[in-house]
Amino acid sequence: MRTRPRVIVIGGGFGGLSAVRTLHSAAVDVLLIDRGNHHTFQPLLYQVATAGLAAPSIAAPLRHILRGQRNVTVLLGEARGIDLEGRTVDVDGVAHRYDFLIVATGNTHAYFGHDEWARYAPGLKTLDDALRIRARILTAFERAEAADDPAQQMGWLTFLIVGAGPTGVELAGTLAEIARHTLKREFRHIDPATARVLLVEAGPRVLPAFPPSLSAKAQRQLERLGVIVRTGRPVTRLDERGVCIDEERITARTVLWAAGVAASPLGAALGVPVDRAGRVLVTAQLTVPEHPDVFVVGDLTAVPDATGPVPAIAPAAKQMGRYAAAAILAKLSGRVIGPFRYRHFGSLATIGRMAAVADFGRLRVSGILAWWIWLTAHVYFLIGFRNRLVVLIDWAEAYWSYRRGARIIFSVGESVKR
Amino acid sequence: MRTRPRVIVIGGGFGGLSAVRTLHSAAVDVLLIDRGNHHTFQPLLYQVATAGLAAPSIAAPLRHILRGQRNVTVLLGEARGIDLEGRTVDVDGVAHRYDFLIVATGNTHAYFGHDEWARYAPGLKTLDDALRIRARILTAFERAEAADDPAQQMGWLTFLIVGAGPTGVELAGTLAEIARHTLKREFRHIDPATARVLLVEAGPRVLPAFPPSLSAKAQRQLERLGVIVRTGRPVTRLDERGVCIDEERITARTVLWAAGVAASPLGAALGVPVDRAGRVLVTAQLTVPEHPDVFVVGDLTAVPDATGPVPAIAPAAKQMGRYAAAAILAKLSGRVIGPFRYRHFGSLATIGRMAAVADFGRLRVSGILAWWIWLTAHVYFLIGFRNRLVVLIDWAEAYWSYRRGARIIFSVGESVKR
Repeated sequence: MRTRPRVIVIGGGFGGLSAVRTLHSAAVDVLLIDRGNHHTFQPLLYQVATAGLAAPSIAAPLRHILRGQRNVTVLLGEARGIDLEGRTVDVDGVAHRYDFLIVATGNTHAYFGHDEWARYAPGLKTLDDALRIRARILTAFERAEAADDPAQQMGWLTFLIVGAGPTGVELAGTLAEIARHTLKREFRHIDPATARVLLVEAGPRVLPAFPPSLSAKAQRQLERLGVIVRTGRPVTRLDERGVCIDEERITARTVLWAAGVAASPLGAALGVPVDRAGRVLVTAQLTVPEHPDVFVVGDLTAVPDATGPVPAIAPAAKQMGRYAAAAILAKLSGRVIGPFRYRHFGSLATIGRMAAVADFGRLRVSGILAWWIWLTAHVYFLIGFRNRLVVLIDWAEAYWSYRRGARIIFSVGESVKR
Repeated sequence: MRTRPRVIVIGGGFGGLSAVRTLHSAAVDVLLIDRGNHHTFQPLLYQVATAGLAAPSIAAPLRHILRGQRNVTVLLGEARGIDLEGRTVDVDGVAHRYDFLIVATGNTHAYFGHDEWARYAPGLKTLDDALRIRARILTAFERAEAADDPAQQMGWLTFLIVGAGPTGVELAGTLAEIARHTLKREFRHIDPATARVLLVEAGPRVLPAFPPSLSAKAQRQLERLGVIVRTGRPVTRLDERGVCIDEERITARTVLWAAGVAASPLGAALGVPVDRAGRVLVTAQLTVPEHPDVFVVGDLTAVPDATGPVPAIAPAAKQMGRYAAAAILAKLSGRVIGPFRYRHFGSLATIGRMAAVADFGRLRVSGILAWWIWLTAHVYFLIGFRNRLVVLIDWAEAYWSYRRGARIIFSVGESVKR
């Protein structure tokens, strides 16, 4: 018997996972490769980082999600290289042959040529990042409590977020709430409410991807929550003790990075043209030029302007994943498929309790209504009944009591790589 | 005005925390020192280690628990030494003066002079331990799936637990359930149900602290769950690839340590007589000889035989903590207090779904009834409404679907110490 076509999908994020699922009943063998054992619901990562949710509440094991799809094999490992000519993927030194390849490794943080900033200002892309940031935030208040001079205390009580995209805005709004409400009455030498939360954006306004009117509303909502917003000036220096914005020095012992993103290095490893951010310049079919069987989907993809601009958000990644899978199915059955068309349903960004903005083109909402839309959408799209229920409980409790259910500092020193 | 007496409590476990709470309305200043920011519900640690519960579900921030008790200051730090003459505790280099001291730092794992075994066979005492063990267990199945020869696979699919006390029994029973049920249909190259779970005990029977009849019942329940029980022979060798039991070599890539415990080093640091396990030999008032203002409570304590034997379990630690606090209150009001009397309510050990043993002296229960008693007691004593509810949901789901809500592998490489 002839073997079935082999589809390799690299990355179990929104793009890769929806590609795999679209191949559900196809007569192909799918190999899904991921460095982690779980799919992460990235839109809620900031909740784990700010101790609102436990990590398992926003993640599900890839094997478990796909256990019923018999044509899929899940492999825990790192794709280190791709041989387009030989049609193989190198996973930790072992070559895996493919007939079709879907690369969906997403993006990571970029420090604009200042990679040394990474250790002082962690970014938020994975659950490990989130737990690290959570530990930093909680430990900062502890250090402030233990510090003896006011200057030191203020340094530990100053939190600075670089970048006012959705993640930066979410982090800033939540941090302000933690300082003002969650930790109330828990310290004896400091008043957490005196903590300063700064949101620094080099561009002219917060949430640059949104219409100016909503950016303005978002900034007002942030300021109402107690966030100090600084726009229009870039961070020029960054070290263990704080940052410089232009010439101004700000002492902040906790700096979080929500500014730049760069495509995953695997894009460049393909050896094909990429844009400035390292995203792969694909065809209108989301394939690599000259390699019609190799697709790139999700945040790693630079979609041609004719189609784009396609934002780096989960719905876009899902659409690309589904498209790539559909294109493979079409090829196998000799059909032709039109170019990828991105359908934009709207943009959502949450700011804090009852504060959010939503942009549905003609319809623009902010405040409590946008917040409800955001909450509903995010719980709805969360994978797994248990997660939904537990997240709702945690949020309900957080809402009424300002408590945050996951205020635990870990220090899992030993890496689990084996 | 004269300053109020200063009570320092080292350790926010069951002993230390109940001491602090007993001093609720006392005219003293309490300083609670702990290395972590949270109280851990240790009886359920094995659930976190086996991916049944998220870590935050069995922990609560000490500050949050005690936020309402205005005479308490919580300090995140490590007590590195105690000066009994100078009446000070050294916390990370800073000396803190005390009028009364309660040492409640508990115990840690002991490898019987084979400290090099620690890296191959982690023990389970903290949430960090639990997350490390969880990662090892889950990764072992991944390695088996990726391995190409059967011998390698079997090595990764063999789990060996050293020590058949309550923790060892809980781990073994749960591991057997994970292999047989939780992971069913999730792998393509291995059948997790072929995994071997060995429980190795040097002593003559499992659960040595229980009556022989219940030990026998526990062993039968373990074997029904698929656990291979080996008693009466000690582990003589232990390395990355497995163990030796007497002369017999067993290849097991995942070995967990549930055998010996040793008192926290702080006990020895007191420079007073300790027993073989390093536990402090206290007076009938739980004080250090010649130092009537220094109490030692919980697992760190070797209670005089007249009172004892006192098991190293949460209820005993709580009773000692409350006693020490009461003794301090008595001294302050010039009253005299009798010696510590331990009141034993019973012993519980769970083995797996609907499998447990309970020993209430005359009344001895096993099987489903004991399991219900265990479940009720543990959920009841869990701190925090949110935790109880979330734990119940996770358990209900795990019971009906065999799913485990926390099957996430972390690798938070960077320590959070700052």
